[in-house]
Amino acid sequence: MTDIAMIEAARVRLDGHVRRTPLLSSPFLDDIAGRRIFVKPECLQHTGSFKFRGAWSAISALSPDVRAKGVIAFSSGNHAQGVALAARMHGIPSVIIMPSDAPRIKIENTRAYGADVVLYDRLNEDRDVIGARLSQERGLTLIKPFDEPLVIAGQGTTGLEIAEQAREEGIEKADVLVPTGGGGFISGVALALNAKAPGFLVHPCEPQGFDDVTRSLASGKIERNATQGGSLCDAIVTPQPGNITFPIMSKLCGAGLVVTDDEALHAVALAFSRLKIVVEPGGAVALAAALFHGETLGETVIAVCSGGNIDPDIFRLALDRFGA
Amino acid sequence: MTDIAMIEAARVRLDGHVRRTPLLSSPFLDDIAGRRIFVKPECLQHTGSFKFRGAWSAISALSPDVRAKGVIAFSSGNHAQGVALAARMHGIPSVIIMPSDAPRIKIENTRAYGADVVLYDRLNEDRDVIGARLSQERGLTLIKPFDEPLVIAGQGTTGLEIAEQAREEGIEKADVLVPTGGGGFISGVALALNAKAPGFLVHPCEPQGFDDVTRSLASGKIERNATQGGSLCDAIVTPQPGNITFPIMSKLCGAGLVVTDDEALHAVALAFSRLKIVVEPGGAVALAAALFHGETLGETVIAVCSGGNIDPDIFRLALDRFGA
Repeated sequence: MTDIAMIEAARVRLDGHVRRTPLLSSPFLDDIAGRRIFVKPECLQHTGSFKFRGAWSAISALSPDVRAKGVIAFSSGNHAQGVALAARMHGIPSVIIMPSDAPRIKIENTRAYGADVVLYDRLNEDRDVIGARLSQERGLTLIKPFDEPLVIAGQGTTGLEIAEQAREEGIEKADVLVPTGGGGFISGVALALNAKAPGFLVHPCEPQGFDDVTRSLASGKIERNATQGGSLCDAIVTPQPGNITFPIMSKLCGAGLVVTDDEALHAVALAFSRLKIVVEPGGAVALAAALFHGETLGETVIAVCSGGNIDPDIFRLALDRFGA
Repeated sequence: MTDIAMIEAARVRLDGHVRRTPLLSSPFLDDIAGRRIFVKPECLQHTGSFKFRGAWSAISALSPDVRAKGVIAFSSGNHAQGVALAARMHGIPSVIIMPSDAPRIKIENTRAYGADVVLYDRLNEDRDVIGARLSQERGLTLIKPFDEPLVIAGQGTTGLEIAEQAREEGIEKADVLVPTGGGGFISGVALALNAKAPGFLVHPCEPQGFDDVTRSLASGKIERNATQGGSLCDAIVTPQPGNITFPIMSKLCGAGLVVTDDEALHAVALAFSRLKIVVEPGGAVALAAALFHGETLGETVIAVCSGGNIDPDIFRLALDRFGA
């Protein structure tokens, strides 16, 4: 079970390899929200998302002989790229299993980061069977995307940075908003802030129609999403909270916030014009919640922008609808 | 005359007010350039460009009674916004004189940062006369955009950060590329690096047709540009090097590098897809030079991206031509 000691140990392993992202702000965003907004841009992290932290944490914790055999992950998105680059920087092989209909650019990027990409047919093949066979044949270690204590510990290093950076800004009390899929990122951040910044309350943020965590926190039990596809915020759409992450979120998080796809796109456009960062819609839901649903929040909000791997066409759409 | 002591004094004044921008990188950019590329994204600075540093440096150095009367600047771009916000954060008035045909968004932004914007008719009015009258009436202090030692000292704090961040990365030798207009930014950076990182050589980068600094360094005397308009890189187009900056650049800088508007747009698109930052064409000329004109450079290049205040239509153009 992840605790603050594990997060601090992960930080030691990540030191010098992970990027310490800054804390950004703009008076224009404060004016829109009617409160002080700070943004933690994990889109500036290696591979364009926080996922690199968890991947590095898990890979660096393996014993050298186990690690040398390599790692395997299932992902068509940010986790794939995080694992691929963290493996390459460790000088070990990685296998990423991706659906053959994943966007070409994501497959190419994952390969370019050094991974052996294995494609499978979503309709006729079982990725778990393929993964189990490859793991056994090559002795690969599976790196899970969120329901894994070492991954949660790595994501939690973001929370340690937030606590320090907020202290430098003189912030003692804040609502911290985190884009949430399976809950690995927010669990790590909440554990870190619970230990280091007790005046901070962490809230999950999700897109409308895929608000499984918000509903689960409200009902007290794990709830599923009705559908799996159709959100622009694909990076954070998962079927339901994790078995490890849900108890952590239940214990430490405040109520969830839900935004529309259009609000997420509006936040993408404002991050472009006011912060000069590139954020994907799923990575922008926390900023959208801070800007457009702040009525239940306090005077200071820290919104994490979790990733920036956006398709140029979607970015154009955000500029077309909400660009100046 | 600016020296390292003035830059270090500026840093003390800037501390806690200026943003320490990170050092970014991407293996994809290294592959394109055939060398290691690091990027210093001053587009993430307050007001979206390094100009905030120089403005803060100059305003914070004024005696309290002089400062209280306010400041004045001539600018339709990044200097205007830097001066306006730095003045507001000091709680003093600012007057920015802008041509009445400046882009509406720039006028609005400068006003939103708290400045009193005075518009003048470029064809029928003399901005210097207007400025002199206002300065005299209200006791305002003029903040020059680049040919001013305190402004150069503020821009030089970027160089102090580069020296420290490069040391953390283990870099002992590097070419440092800086987008250059009047030369205030590069002069400050070169002075700082000359003192703190003697293995580093600083080069100005300019757009084709507006390479006055490159030609001036080559000929040993101040050369002018033939025309003033028509570059996408408007943020760094000035008639000629400054009288204060030219001797500093002559003494400390290596040869200039010149890129086309299309190369600058290509760098804008790659900064979007690979670094997740928003850079304006003028701010991207150093990255473009690192990516496409590296043949005379060493194994490690640090490219400064100086600003990100780009029109959405120009950004779309970059994505249309060079987006994935």
